[in-house]
Amino acid sequence: MSGIRIGVIGAGNMGADHVATLHRHVSGAEVTLVADIDKERAASVAGTVPGARATDDAYAVIDDPEVDAVVIASHDTTHADLSVAAVRAGKPVLCEKPLAPTLEECVRVVREERRAGGGLISLGFMRRFDPAHTQLKSAVSAGECGSPLLVRCVSRGVSSAPGCTDELSITGSAIHEFDTVPWLLDSPVTEVSWHAPRSTAAVSGFRDPQLILLRTADGALTTVEVFLNARYGYDIRCEVVGEHGTVALTHPARIVADSARARSSGYPADWRPRFADAYRLELQAWTDAVRSGAASPMATARDGLVASAVAGAVIASMEDGGKTIPVQVPEV
Amino acid sequence: MSGIRIGVIGAGNMGADHVATLHRHVSGAEVTLVADIDKERAASVAGTVPGARATDDAYAVIDDPEVDAVVIASHDTTHADLSVAAVRAGKPVLCEKPLAPTLEECVRVVREERRAGGGLISLGFMRRFDPAHTQLKSAVSAGECGSPLLVRCVSRGVSSAPGCTDELSITGSAIHEFDTVPWLLDSPVTEVSWHAPRSTAAVSGFRDPQLILLRTADGALTTVEVFLNARYGYDIRCEVVGEHGTVALTHPARIVADSARARSSGYPADWRPRFADAYRLELQAWTDAVRSGAASPMATARDGLVASAVAGAVIASMEDGGKTIPVQVPEV
Amino acid sequence: MSGIRIGVIGAGNMGADHVATLHRHVSGAEVTLVADIDKERAASVAGTVPGARATDDAYAVIDDPEVDAVVIASHDTTHADLSVAAVRAGKPVLCEKPLAPTLEECVRVVREERRAGGGLISLGFMRRFDPAHTQLKSAVSAGECGSPLLVRCVSRGVSSAPGCTDELSITGSAIHEFDTVPWLLDSPVTEVSWHAPRSTAAVSGFRDPQLILLRTADGALTTVEVFLNARYGYDIRCEVVGEHGTVALTHPARIVADSARARSSGYPADWRPRFADAYRLELQAWTDAVRSGAASPMATARDGLVASAVAGAVIASMEDGGKTIPVQVPEV
Amino acid sequence: MSGIRIGVIGAGNMGADHVATLHRHVSGAEVTLVADIDKERAASVAGTVPGARATDDAYAVIDDPEVDAVVIASHDTTHADLSVAAVRAGKPVLCEKPLAPTLEECVRVVREERRAGGGLISLGFMRRFDPAHTQLKSAVSAGECGSPLLVRCVSRGVSSAPGCTDELSITGSAIHEFDTVPWLLDSPVTEVSWHAPRSTAAVSGFRDPQLILLRTADGALTTVEVFLNARYGYDIRCEVVGEHGTVALTHPARIVADSARARSSGYPADWRPRFADAYRLELQAWTDAVRSGAASPMATARDGLVASAVAGAVIASMEDGGKTIPVQVPEV
Repeated sequence: MSGIRIGVIGAGNMGADHVATLHRHVSGAEVTLVADIDKERAASVAGTVPGARATDDAYAVIDDPEVDAVVIASHDTTHADLSVAAVRAGKPVLCEKPLAPTLEECVRVVREERRAGGGLISLGFMRRFDPAHTQLKSAVSAGECGSPLLVRCVSRGVSSAPGCTDELSITGSAIHEFDTVPWLLDSPVTEVSWHAPRSTAAVSGFRDPQLILLRTADGALTTVEVFLNARYGYDIRCEVVGEHGTVALTHPARIVADSARARSSGYPADWRPRFADAYRLELQAWTDAVRSGAASPMATARDGLVASAVAGAVIASMEDGGKTIPVQVPEV
Repeated sequence: MSGIRIGVIGAGNMGADHVATLHRHVSGAEVTLVADIDKERAASVAGTVPGARATDDAYAVIDDPEVDAVVIASHDTTHADLSVAAVRAGKPVLCEKPLAPTLEECVRVVREERRAGGGLISLGFMRRFDPAHTQLKSAVSAGECGSPLLVRCVSRGVSSAPGCTDELSITGSAIHEFDTVPWLLDSPVTEVSWHAPRSTAAVSGFRDPQLILLRTADGALTTVEVFLNARYGYDIRCEVVGEHGTVALTHPARIVADSARARSSGYPADWRPRFADAYRLELQAWTDAVRSGAASPMATARDGLVASAVAGAVIASMEDGGKTIPVQVPEV
Repeated sequence: MSGIRIGVIGAGNMGADHVATLHRHVSGAEVTLVADIDKERAASVAGTVPGARATDDAYAVIDDPEVDAVVIASHDTTHADLSVAAVRAGKPVLCEKPLAPTLEECVRVVREERRAGGGLISLGFMRRFDPAHTQLKSAVSAGECGSPLLVRCVSRGVSSAPGCTDELSITGSAIHEFDTVPWLLDSPVTEVSWHAPRSTAAVSGFRDPQLILLRTADGALTTVEVFLNARYGYDIRCEVVGEHGTVALTHPARIVADSARARSSGYPADWRPRFADAYRLELQAWTDAVRSGAASPMATARDGLVASAVAGAVIASMEDGGKTIPVQVPEV
Repeated sequence: MSGIRIGVIGAGNMGADHVATLHRHVSGAEVTLVADIDKERAASVAGTVPGARATDDAYAVIDDPEVDAVVIASHDTTHADLSVAAVRAGKPVLCEKPLAPTLEECVRVVREERRAGGGLISLGFMRRFDPAHTQLKSAVSAGECGSPLLVRCVSRGVSSAPGCTDELSITGSAIHEFDTVPWLLDSPVTEVSWHAPRSTAAVSGFRDPQLILLRTADGALTTVEVFLNARYGYDIRCEVVGEHGTVALTHPARIVADSARARSSGYPADWRPRFADAYRLELQAWTDAVRSGAASPMATARDGLVASAVAGAVIASMEDGGKTIPVQVPEV
């Protein structure tokens, strides 16, 4: 069984990270082609992999005979069209979240994929592969805390990207939790409400932090805090409170220091150190599935559609003064 | 300066605990009289203190010439009348929370106290004396996390008392947080909303856990989780998230054990070990104030009125499907 | 039962701390007289307690008719003579450790005390009253880790007092562990050896840190690290490793902060915050015993003699290149 | 650049683990041949890798034209001969520790390797690749704790392998620390002494736990606790105490649970979960070096010789009542 040849579309932070991980840490994967609208950037990233070529044409990646499978890490607005092109070409595709910026486009992609036979799109909700999150899910499933009643998710970062808006905070960041929570509880989100304190003085132009309540079909209630400009570090927390106990992620620092009247351990500045293993294991699992022809263990296009439907309900609540809004997943 | 002679009304768990603490750990306090409607119980508790007498008449305590100050730890429904009698007698009184079960009665007590000159009633919001909570407040005040934006409070217990109801969970337990949060932030609660997941199967007849959102005048948003039947232990948490960091209570275990594939540290079964220091320091501070004639550093009757007003708004939200309800503190 | 009247000899840091604790936090104790060779210092400390008097004559405290019991917190070299004077006067005495700087003097004190009937001297090994240490002992005794095999003690401080020497590091600091370990294990120290790395550049003139091995009669092996100039904070650790698990002290911080890429919790600058409860509970237990005529639950003069014998063996090992030295406790 | 073809000698726990890691998680490595004296075991492990063959002849692996590089994970007593055969065949070899059971054999291997041009042998001290240990080393090197003075290493396991002896505990387990400590401090071990409490009742026939003191050329003093039958879990600790602070490994649990009056997090039953990343990163780094022709970043044969020299000195101390023994590394 030889390795699979992978084309990566998008050579920004995320695409470059995927190329490096595939090349250096994934067994059975070979990056053969890298695309970016900035051809120099594509060439620079391709240059890190012996034998890899560069292009500024995303569709050329999909059509290339030396590309067995495609990773889409370009701008969110391109995800839908590229995914559709890939499934039409019959190639497995790992698309970064979100599947598409709008629910309508998500529906279109899911339909096109089904038309092509289904099962070709894997969505990059990498937390499903984070060892801490998978242990958390195993513990919950094993009944270690009893039936879940409350979940508390926290996503904090150092600073938001330029141009961030209230909505992007939901569709770009909180959306991870909209996939993680139902995956963790094995129960879909049924209604949501949006809340916020006054915003931090560190930003202007959008609400930060935000606090979202999610109700799932199992009757559990989840709070999701998203705070993009928390300043102190990149910090992902999750606690599940059940009928006779709790299970939670730990602070994942590997070393602790005593210095200057304090015992302390570090936070990373961004998601890369925190989720490096998750991305590696996700890419390995996807590569293994593509090589063996097995079903991908990743989130599906429909999972992406569902998460976008939750995001849509949250934004509707935000626009309606925090009213409770039911989640409506379009029939596809 | 000689010690003060204290009469304790109520010889249940709380009253007995106060008697033991005053007698064994508070400097300058002498318990001289213990009252309980069950005279045997009064006698049993009084018997632990050399020289202390027992009675089944609460008002006899207030009138007793050998009682300089009164502790009220009897049933919640007696707090208002006994407090009023004590202030009319001109005696300092430490009343367990709540000041009274209804807002109307709270108003009456505050008015009676003012009529008597004010400053005689101290309310037993003992968390203000818990070393962990006072350190938390100091850190917040010192700006260690920046201006507060979000607060997360958790109050979990092993099991609820018989006869607990949705409302008692609010007025008896959550009310601690309704005092703690504005004290911590130095900002009053302005509006609230009530939420809950499905209830734990461990109880029937009332909602447990409950989740309350509090908005304070400073713009911060607080979540209060109250879970009386959390089963695993008595667990009080508080985290303040500010503009550049967080401050939170730690898990207060003093020892940690490795055994049977786990590293673990204990939770107490109830509030006594957790707040023993808080009660001791509260009683010491009150004793010192009474002895020296200084103003009590404890919560006031008005603080009790305000906390009850918050509790009333939360119950109104509960009864109105989780609607956001403004807090209205009666003019007194 | 009225309170006991206490005279405190020594108004330095330790004596002043005892006066404050007795006056403000101990039930049933009244400080009536404070002595110091610096009479102004005595007066200043006595001035914090209404009704207390000051003197520069330590023996006047012992003889004073308004002194029921004596606390000795003066210079180490005065402990033996003052203790002997107190027992001859038939007054209970709480003597700060060490009982005496030399083993010979310790023997003399123990003999004098026995001659006076015994049971009058309590030695200030306050760790026996530290809630963390007592929980540790309870857990070990309850078999939570199985029979102890290894113990690891760490005593670190910010900086040493002026004039510190190799020996003072042993007789002034490590000696706490020489009492704690046999108390914890319920087994005496039988042999010792002394070791050290190169010293920290922060001091000159003595060895710091030092590492001591203690063997107890039960066959367990203990390492004691004493590092007076560890700089980062005052930090006391203890771990007991048994046949099927471990029990250890936790880092006792009550709050934790996230800030500037780190999660951190504080260390105190010295022993006062760390052992405030231990001193309070020790003084309360001693006061209770004196009032009731019960035996003191504190360490005895003989315990002090034994600890000094261990210290002597450690110093002998230090002077003999780290050789293993048996502990010889003089017959008294 | 195509992948390298690897032959693995030894299909026990360790060999099987290496095969699985190379096949499933290492980029650019292909397992082509697996040897074991038990041919069925070899076949069973080879059967997990498409295309891999099995043999019961270890030397056939070294001679095989489809083997570019060799992993030796067979019995300790075979390491020397197989390593020598591999270097004579000019093939890079990753040899599990120890390099050889005796110092004499270690010397022979190092000489043979030098004769063959050097640089062909990499020794499996995988802790050098453990992310926690590499972060610890980085922190120490960056001066986060100041110049190291004391190091505390703890290696605890659930139970020892059948047939374990006092010496095997040193040469098989403690030897990891004999490599880790000088690597961490960048300073060789110069003298050692051996100590032990009474042994745990869980085993008979050998001393467990053992406590070893190591002195390094930089003047630091290290304690190494090896406790193979600690029962509660597999637990590796390391703390470096420097002139103004400390750095230490954390307990590496990813999740924490509250249940039954305790907050707890797990320990693994053996080394596999703890060091899975270390082995993966070691094998990846070795594969990368072999592919690119760069020098291996792993421990060298000489590092293995040095660790064995330390082990020899420790055993000499054990046999001589705990005397301090200088480490003598043979000239090669």
